Amino acid sequence: GHPVYRDMPTTIFEHMSALARETGSINLGQGFPDAPGPPDILNMAAQALLTRSNQYPPMAGLPELRAAVASHYALHQGLDLTPQEVIVTSGATEAIAATLLALVQPGHEVLLLAPLYDAYLPLIERAGGVAKVVRLTPPEWRITQAALEAAASPRTRFLLMNNPVNPTGIVLREEELALLARFCVERDLIAICDEVWEHLTYDGVRHHPLMAQPGMRERTVKIGSAGKIFSLTGWKVGWMCAAPPVATLLARAHQFLTFTTPPNLQWAVAKGLAKPVEWFDAMRADYQASRDRLVAGLTKAGFLLLPSQATWFVCVDLPASGIAMDDAEFCERIVHEAGVAAIPISAFYPDDPVTHLVRLCFSKADDVLDEAVARLAEFR
Amino acid sequence: GHPVYRDMPTTIFEHMSALARETGSINLGQGFPDAPGPPDILNMAAQALLTRSNQYPPMAGLPELRAAVASHYALHQGLDLTPQEVIVTSGATEAIAATLLALVQPGHEVLLLAPLYDAYLPLIERAGGVAKVVRLTPPEWRITQAALEAAASPRTRFLLMNNPVNPTGIVLREEELALLARFCVERDLIAICDEVWEHLTYDGVRHHPLMAQPGMRERTVKIGSAGKIFSLTGWKVGWMCAAPPVATLLARAHQFLTFTTPPNLQWAVAKGLAKPVEWFDAMRADYQASRDRLVAGLTKAGFLLLPSQATWFVCVDLPASGIAMDDAEFCERIVHEAGVAAIPISAFYPDDPVTHLVRLCFSKADDVLDEAVARLAEFR
Ligand SMILES: CSCCC(=O)C(=O)O
Ligand SMILES: CSCCC(=O)C(=O)O
Repeated sequence: GHPVYRDMPTTIFEHMSALARETGSINLGQGFPDAPGPPDILNMAAQALLTRSNQYPPMAGLPELRAAVASHYALHQGLDLTPQEVIVTSGATEAIAATLLALVQPGHEVLLLAPLYDAYLPLIERAGGVAKVVRLTPPEWRITQAALEAAASPRTRFLLMNNPVNPTGIVLREEELALLARFCVERDLIAICDEVWEHLTYDGVRHHPLMAQPGMRERTVKIGSAGKIFSLTGWKVGWMCAAPPVATLLARAHQFLTFTTPPNLQWAVAKGLAKPVEWFDAMRADYQASRDRLVAGLTKAGFLLLPSQATWFVCVDLPASGIAMDDAEFCERIVHEAGVAAIPISAFYPDDPVTHLVRLCFSKADDVLDEAVARLAEFR
Repeated sequence: GHPVYRDMPTTIFEHMSALARETGSINLGQGFPDAPGPPDILNMAAQALLTRSNQYPPMAGLPELRAAVASHYALHQGLDLTPQEVIVTSGATEAIAATLLALVQPGHEVLLLAPLYDAYLPLIERAGGVAKVVRLTPPEWRITQAALEAAASPRTRFLLMNNPVNPTGIVLREEELALLARFCVERDLIAICDEVWEHLTYDGVRHHPLMAQPGMRERTVKIGSAGKIFSLTGWKVGWMCAAPPVATLLARAHQFLTFTTPPNLQWAVAKGLAKPVEWFDAMRADYQASRDRLVAGLTKAGFLLLPSQATWFVCVDLPASGIAMDDAEFCERIVHEAGVAAIPISAFYPDDPVTHLVRLCFSKADDVLDEAVARLAEFR
């Protein structure tokens, strides 16, 4: 045997951010905002740092944050979680790692939907699991019963999915959620739902958690991220929610991965989650305006973009934009020649990739988006 | 198969801290200080939070912190690390997890020295490794060639050790370091050195890293913790240092566990590591005074303690103190009857435990230590 990680490159996000730094490019690759973040939440974190304990908080998180997550999901998504069903983690990546290391045993099969986030496969492999990938394709990226059935087997134990979906900007449709729920119940699967983009939805579209579907309350791990909700991606505060028997296993894996998460950031996130509904609406409206600005600019410059109703991302369709390059070549060329970093969609497929789409991140200041549009227009 | 973590209780530290909260006891169990922490480092973290980026820093850590760790070890321990050989983690627990998940493959044997930290065994098991435990005993806790040879086999690939040692307060002697280094070189082992207590040494004793021993530079992973060095255990900023081929594997495991660590805390730790040597001497002198105060008080009350020259811990010898209880019973009784939480040493052995010692944490204010002494004297 050889180490799982030996032949694995650095994540595409890290790679492209490093390239953006080296070339002085505008970074529309890795997903992060360029605004400083909500001032009141930053101030709360600074104040907690200076006035509250900086020693180990309880391993599963500050009771106040666990309660705030439960209340937040009750108000925004109609869920009935107790604080004991919420475990705070050092970011959603840790939550995904802890969940997979807690639950997946050698030989277990895990169902995935591609395009998929790059951490999923190495973590499943490291846990001894076997990934079974359902390949979705543009423009609809639709999930079908036939595709699920073709990928599943009697050894399938888990569904690991992302909704809303990075990189496509899709929010799963009601009938897809119902299909996934029925499939999990019939086959006795646990669903691991990476819902870090749950608040980043546009055009009045709302995210509905798979956990709320019939039969899913006891068989879902719901994962969230304060970094995404509050535009503070470096904070690395996340959580995983599950019914008590599963939550107990998750907590045990978590205690041996990071043990706990900085308490001052936990206090600030607890405060942030209690903000009024209007705050979240305004945040969505801001990002929607940024999306619209980037899409309008690029459309005017002759690019064609796929619709995106969520996340911080929108995809350029290269052939429909009259560009005769694949996604990897286009990304390589624009970072060096146009001074704009992006992410090729092929990086989200373990094999048989879709290669004609390029992901751009729009969670940036207006002048940054305008300059990126100008550079890409010029590059054409 | 069944999940590794199913039958595993919450860590003894979490358990005892929860019991201390419930009973209103003085918590001399879990190792953390009760002082607020160094004001200048706290201020630097608050300032960075409000004035610098809170978005993803580079995955392996801020370049400034990686350089600060390398310089710190050059000055304090004579090591010649480059910044590229340092990877920042969300605490030393994450560093241990990332190292084991990066390097240990199914069937690999890992040599351990008991008493041992409770995260080691579940992480080795989760990586598919097999733990081979060398059982050490008081009062000397001495490591011998014969004991290492009895535990090792041709399948042994790693030595995972802690120095200075929690819970014994031992700093490994020069001849033990030489023995361990020879053993690793002869058997082609990689040493994973959890050196989180490296600065917490007393009576003029100094910690020497195993990495500095002949032949060990390329075969050692050295793990450190800002939480321990700066008395801020909740910050969860740590690092792992290794030569480039190993560091590459560690970085890949890290990127799928937490990806990165809050940048404002990284800035503050970088500043802290550059403090003058006198600062570290003064910090040691403070904790040495706390140790001496607790030991003097308990000795006067008729308790006998084993010598401790490092960490925040000192062990009471129950039979030598005239107490006819084992460690678990004593800890159970004092938390409920005396209002003092402690940790039984048996919790640090996977089997065949030493059961006549109880660990007390002395990184507390004078009045807290005095009150704990008074309560324990009264309990006798
Ligand atoms: C952890 S880096 C990746 C951030 C992100 O979610 C993305 O860019 O897709
Ligand atoms: C992560 S909780 C344990 C803290 C500690 O090092 C100890 O008490 O031994």
